[in-house]
Amino acid sequence: MVIDSIKDYFNHELDNYFKGKDGFNKIIYEAQDYSLRIGGKRVRPTLCFLTYSLYEEDYKKVLPLSLALEMIHTYSLIHDDLPAMDNDDLRRGKPTNHKVFGEAIAILAGDSLLNEAFNILIDFSIKNGEKALLATKEITNASGAEGMIGGQIVDIINEGKEIQEEELLYMHSKKTGELIKASILSGAIYGGASNEELDKLKSFGENLGLAFQIKDDILDVVGNTNKLGKNVKSDENNNKTNFITMYGLEYCNKKCIELTNECLEILNSLNKDVKSLKALTLELLNREN
Amino acid sequence: MVIDSIKDYFNHELDNYFKGKDGFNKIIYEAQDYSLRIGGKRVRPTLCFLTYSLYEEDYKKVLPLSLALEMIHTYSLIHDDLPAMDNDDLRRGKPTNHKVFGEAIAILAGDSLLNEAFNILIDFSIKNGEKALLATKEITNASGAEGMIGGQIVDIINEGKEIQEEELLYMHSKKTGELIKASILSGAIYGGASNEELDKLKSFGENLGLAFQIKDDILDVVGNTNKLGKNVKSDENNNKTNFITMYGLEYCNKKCIELTNECLEILNSLNKDVKSLKALTLELLNREN
Repeated sequence: MVIDSIKDYFNHELDNYFKGKDGFNKIIYEAQDYSLRIGGKRVRPTLCFLTYSLYEEDYKKVLPLSLALEMIHTYSLIHDDLPAMDNDDLRRGKPTNHKVFGEAIAILAGDSLLNEAFNILIDFSIKNGEKALLATKEITNASGAEGMIGGQIVDIINEGKEIQEEELLYMHSKKTGELIKASILSGAIYGGASNEELDKLKSFGENLGLAFQIKDDILDVVGNTNKLGKNVKSDENNNKTNFITMYGLEYCNKKCIELTNECLEILNSLNKDVKSLKALTLELLNREN
Repeated sequence: MVIDSIKDYFNHELDNYFKGKDGFNKIIYEAQDYSLRIGGKRVRPTLCFLTYSLYEEDYKKVLPLSLALEMIHTYSLIHDDLPAMDNDDLRRGKPTNHKVFGEAIAILAGDSLLNEAFNILIDFSIKNGEKALLATKEITNASGAEGMIGGQIVDIINEGKEIQEEELLYMHSKKTGELIKASILSGAIYGGASNEELDKLKSFGENLGLAFQIKDDILDVVGNTNKLGKNVKSDENNNKTNFITMYGLEYCNKKCIELTNECLEILNSLNKDVKSLKALTLELLNREN
């Protein structure tokens, strides 16, 4: 299946990315490598490969965008897991970065992954010009204070507080949604999508991001620590408001299906070969981790 | 004097940079703003303005590069000061970021400054094309695992250990030197310097970066906490090897002067109006903080 072969290709590239790095600073590569390679669904890179594939044949051409997206996602997990943040011991079924390398190295490994993502994006832009730069802008905006970090800060400052619907939606659309949307749009922009297509893909991204986050909250309540690879009920233990505490499980399950259907309809309206993107959308709805 | 008016201009821009930001994520802007505006010598932005000025009249055109450089420097200080790193309470005479906002927000404020630097650099590159991208590449490489973060990791893993000269030089050339060099080169690249001139400016940057770090170590021993704005003897308290513990104070003072003279000679060899760059070089040698 296309998705599996894309993931295999990407994992292989990731396995080799920091290979052979040596020097006084070697440990920074080991720490980055550890978190990049302990697993993960590779949702963001796969979305980027697949939306680019709507327009161009050789999906490998957007490997730099996909690597950058996965590095940014991984850095955010390393920092989220820190004792000063969510204080999680387990991620993807393995000890979190700071549990293995200590807090100082974990902080720097996160910093370094964010920086490396930008190194990759700049080299990609120097080589490929304006479309690459515009795809890059989509990603760097999505990961910043008006994107992922903005969602994360709202999450952190509201720990132990009840928050209202508007703030919960803001938090999740930023924390998870923005980078998922950027994964979709960056591939499409570099592939040459029209503005009309980009508008549709933006809606697709927003619906998919929200479905993804609600599913995350569902799994946090009904999931299994072994399958999830992280501790369940972490929101409850951190006294966090999430979609389940706000709307209840039944509504959330229903909402997830609705959003997924919305995604599939938008994809159909593109008049492209959207088979793999639809398969991935359904895979995310039905996932157990 | 040129340097003072450049600094005034830059500080004014910085004062307004995050002004008026509002929303659920407001605190992330307050935390970034706090550390950006509690002072600082503005060495990196000033170097960038001045090297650009060797080639072009209106130094304000490199404001985006200068803002990015100062944001990257500031993020590195916020993360360096964290309890898991150097655990410093005082920076530029004021409480460190985590002392004011707590660790979680301080970590995210650092992340966000790094990300914002890249947002600025990407917008600058979209607007100004290849020379801007090449200047950007100089900065993003200098701040990453082969630059500033590489130096920082070597610093962290050697706390409490005696290290050899080669590793000490590596640590400082990376931790401080790379971003100072990038400040010089990015302005020159965007200004249109020739390869021969860039080579000279690279040597200037290397000498200046090393002099700057040795002076830092001298001030850490003989400086005054009030003037420095940070606690003295922090290296001694953290059991760190530095230039003083390795070579002694007398040698370090002599070396600082030698390196400064080397800087001045290189600048003279450029056949440009290097008056302000020479003044800044001497200002850094004679500084008390």
